[in-house]
Amino acid sequence: MTTSPDLQPILIDGAWRQAQSPEGRFNAYNPSTRETIGDHAYPVSGWQDLDAMLEAGKAAAAQMARLPADTIAGLLERYADGIEARAEALIETAHRETGLPVEPRLRNAELPRTTGQLRQAAKAARDGSWRRPTIDTAAGIRSIHAPLGGPVVVFGPNNFPYAFNGISGGDFAAAIAAGNPVIAKAHPAHPRTSVLLAEAAIEAAQAAGLPSGAVQMFFRSPGELGLRLVADPRVGAVAFTGGRSAGTKLKAAADAVGKPIYLEMSSVNPVFVLPGALRERGEAIATELHGSCAMGAGQFCTKPGVTVLTAGDAAEAFIDTLRTHTAGATPGVLLSPQSPDEIASTVARLQAAGAELLAGGSIAADAKGFAFQPTVLRVSGERFLAAPEALQSEAFGHVNLVVVADSDEQALQVAEAMEGNLTGTIYSDTGGSDDAAYDALAPILRTRVGRLLNDKMPTGVAVSAAMNHGGPFPATGHPGFTAVGIPASLIRFSALHSYDNVRPHRLPAELQDRNPDGRLLRLVDGEWTTRDV
Amino acid sequence: MTTSPDLQPILIDGAWRQAQSPEGRFNAYNPSTRETIGDHAYPVSGWQDLDAMLEAGKAAAAQMARLPADTIAGLLERYADGIEARAEALIETAHRETGLPVEPRLRNAELPRTTGQLRQAAKAARDGSWRRPTIDTAAGIRSIHAPLGGPVVVFGPNNFPYAFNGISGGDFAAAIAAGNPVIAKAHPAHPRTSVLLAEAAIEAAQAAGLPSGAVQMFFRSPGELGLRLVADPRVGAVAFTGGRSAGTKLKAAADAVGKPIYLEMSSVNPVFVLPGALRERGEAIATELHGSCAMGAGQFCTKPGVTVLTAGDAAEAFIDTLRTHTAGATPGVLLSPQSPDEIASTVARLQAAGAELLAGGSIAADAKGFAFQPTVLRVSGERFLAAPEALQSEAFGHVNLVVVADSDEQALQVAEAMEGNLTGTIYSDTGGSDDAAYDALAPILRTRVGRLLNDKMPTGVAVSAAMNHGGPFPATGHPGFTAVGIPASLIRFSALHSYDNVRPHRLPAELQDRNPDGRLLRLVDGEWTTRDV
Repeated sequence: MTTSPDLQPILIDGAWRQAQSPEGRFNAYNPSTRETIGDHAYPVSGWQDLDAMLEAGKAAAAQMARLPADTIAGLLERYADGIEARAEALIETAHRETGLPVEPRLRNAELPRTTGQLRQAAKAARDGSWRRPTIDTAAGIRSIHAPLGGPVVVFGPNNFPYAFNGISGGDFAAAIAAGNPVIAKAHPAHPRTSVLLAEAAIEAAQAAGLPSGAVQMFFRSPGELGLRLVADPRVGAVAFTGGRSAGTKLKAAADAVGKPIYLEMSSVNPVFVLPGALRERGEAIATELHGSCAMGAGQFCTKPGVTVLTAGDAAEAFIDTLRTHTAGATPGVLLSPQSPDEIASTVARLQAAGAELLAGGSIAADAKGFAFQPTVLRVSGERFLAAPEALQSEAFGHVNLVVVADSDEQALQVAEAMEGNLTGTIYSDTGGSDDAAYDALAPILRTRVGRLLNDKMPTGVAVSAAMNHGGPFPATGHPGFTAVGIPASLIRFSALHSYDNVRPHRLPAELQDRNPDGRLLRLVDGEWTTRDV
Repeated sequence: MTTSPDLQPILIDGAWRQAQSPEGRFNAYNPSTRETIGDHAYPVSGWQDLDAMLEAGKAAAAQMARLPADTIAGLLERYADGIEARAEALIETAHRETGLPVEPRLRNAELPRTTGQLRQAAKAARDGSWRRPTIDTAAGIRSIHAPLGGPVVVFGPNNFPYAFNGISGGDFAAAIAAGNPVIAKAHPAHPRTSVLLAEAAIEAAQAAGLPSGAVQMFFRSPGELGLRLVADPRVGAVAFTGGRSAGTKLKAAADAVGKPIYLEMSSVNPVFVLPGALRERGEAIATELHGSCAMGAGQFCTKPGVTVLTAGDAAEAFIDTLRTHTAGATPGVLLSPQSPDEIASTVARLQAAGAELLAGGSIAADAKGFAFQPTVLRVSGERFLAAPEALQSEAFGHVNLVVVADSDEQALQVAEAMEGNLTGTIYSDTGGSDDAAYDALAPILRTRVGRLLNDKMPTGVAVSAAMNHGGPFPATGHPGFTAVGIPASLIRFSALHSYDNVRPHRLPAELQDRNPDGRLLRLVDGEWTTRDV
């Protein structure tokens, strides 16, 4: 199309409305071809739009607090159905906007994961046990986790157009299941995908009987308005998945006014291969590591970015295998026009701090799409310890830094220099020769990561009740919460409500003497039980 | 004593050591007589002391993570015994330093509450269910809440020398029970009491086999060092109970580096008396309100600071009763030399914003101890709505502001203008004439308070599993957590640890197939159960 398209409306208070006084417009790209997608243009929202969403979200919060869990679960389930009904359009559109493969990634992995999350969240909402109803009959006090009283603002990342999208992903599902409206900021890298999802979301919300402000979506706003948005008194909480620079700014703005904010930011996901494992199966692990770094062109939060080995022949063989794989790999398609430059600048920072380039290292200028050469670097343990911060810079692409410690002791020091990460992995041999090294390393790594793995690469974040997709700062803003995993992820979007001497008929059904469905797990006078009081 | 006493040593790494290069010294006061207590002087710690505590605390954290829960519970129980063994000295000392009555307050209420909390925390530590062990056998992932990996810094307030003391109170008990070392900052208003407690604490820790850095204590440090302390990488988390000014500064410092910080700051604890209740039993409620304001000379976090009525004869009678009680009351002893001036300045701020003084309002200069006249003020709903922030200034003493709304509708607007509070109370009549007004008010108040009460004053914070001594900012820093109430208060001082494909014998006992004691509640494949896997 050569004519300038009309601006895509945004979803405010149950209707698609033109942006009021937009601050600009933008188009999406097809990262596989580097072409602008010209058939739709999207508004950069000004404060009027955000203010209208906040007002509608606040009103919706008050209404949703009175709805039965069943109604909210109904929205989530209808939405999952609606996504499946639109699967072909969603897959085609997301592929065009992200360059992610149609199969298996979009069709067989991410889309079913997304609908699965929504349905699991619906189940948790119906079940209600995540709200930890607590009854103390002697003191006359009862408590329960409850909605926040304001909308949850969800900022989605660029790398998962469905599963972490602000309008359909894990944070969305958790916030809604916990009884809160959502104001989603679609990532500008996949706006059309987000429109299709939002259409399904609002249709489901209306069919399920949710208030008009229950699900809302905008595309972009100037940075300072994002900061104003998260600090607005009407907001209940904020969820953010993305880079550390934007994340820490939003965190500061929300923290200053005491708004809960949950962030999933940067992580280099260290992988330690202990000496026995290196000798036993170093080549196989190097191959596995390469595969993990290549997945999604390295654009995963849990991509291993740092590998730690103890020096020796087996380490050199490992590095050689990894270098050969990396040098021979085809550059994957990156998500945005900025991606290659961002990776180049991080690789330059690693080199400036003393890392030596073994393979790759340059923008893949001759690739059809946005791309960067698969890259591997190495650095000594000594140099790593001299500049641990710079050498833990996250490159959001296929880049791995191998740290070669001169002793097992130095490998422990490298572990101690690690910042907070989403994951940490230890490979050890099967015969037991690494056991002492494991026992020394694991406690150090344990307090620095959300998820500790053995003998397995960290890419792949199962939607499991036992998952922790979280970890200490700067991986996230708080080490006690997970962004993935139901029901644990729901508790983030709740306030603790205690009722003291409140007359029985005024209590929420979950706190009345009678267990509302006979299945709700409650802590009654010190005992977890499903019985009536 | 007329000679200058030696400085009291501080408790570092298991021993009482002289402060290194202290930045100053201070004495405690006897608030009942306004006299300096000259027989002990206390150091203002410089960074060397804090650094030594952090180092010892970090080492202790690593050791405590390996200890069985039974050992940690043993510390808490021995400590409770040790407090009881020292009860007479503790009561005499705390009375001298705080002016709080020996009976019933110190002997019959606060001391047993404190030992009760420690024993409840021990029980929760042994039980372990608060850690939410979660097992997903299909995914091969298991998770549990675990210690933070660094010491918890606990700042205690001035008003509860035992029950909220950094070295013995609720935050201390929760942090230790969750498996973390504590670095306590004793409040400078009761340093000798804190020394006696710390002596019992370290004796119990050593007898129970805890590492030397498990419990440490200092007295004071310059403000900028406090900010440096809470942001130190070795810190696990921070707990603070005190004023909003210091609290928000510490919050900003901890937030900037992603350290979890839990604050219990200011709260005006609004009390709404609905029209039917005013008519039915206004005088009784006014008398009850007066008693609640007078408790502890009004120096309770949950003291009602704002009362909201709808205008009319019954409101005037209520105010007249309250005014009469207040004018006739004896000023209570305040905790510090600064207290009277601080209250005077808050009362002046309320007056400047339009409140009219009905009784009291001045420093009680002729009282033997530090004191301020019991005070009541009134303001119209209209004026309140014109300056809601100033008129929600917390006076930490016996001061109550009565807001007289010109209609029930305006009373709702007053509720909507309320900031986050620890508590909110609604009195309604027994016959049902207030039911509609209650149903309109309760949802508004509910999202603004941690604990909602009916027909009962909020002073008195039961140590109940269902208690929420928390609430939205600025009452605290996060609406999802409580500072009082076991086991809920423990979860604040934990990180979520997920284990993915970790070899079975390397898992914590709580996550192995066999339920370690047959009683631990675990979420196994979606079902809460005490069975083995």
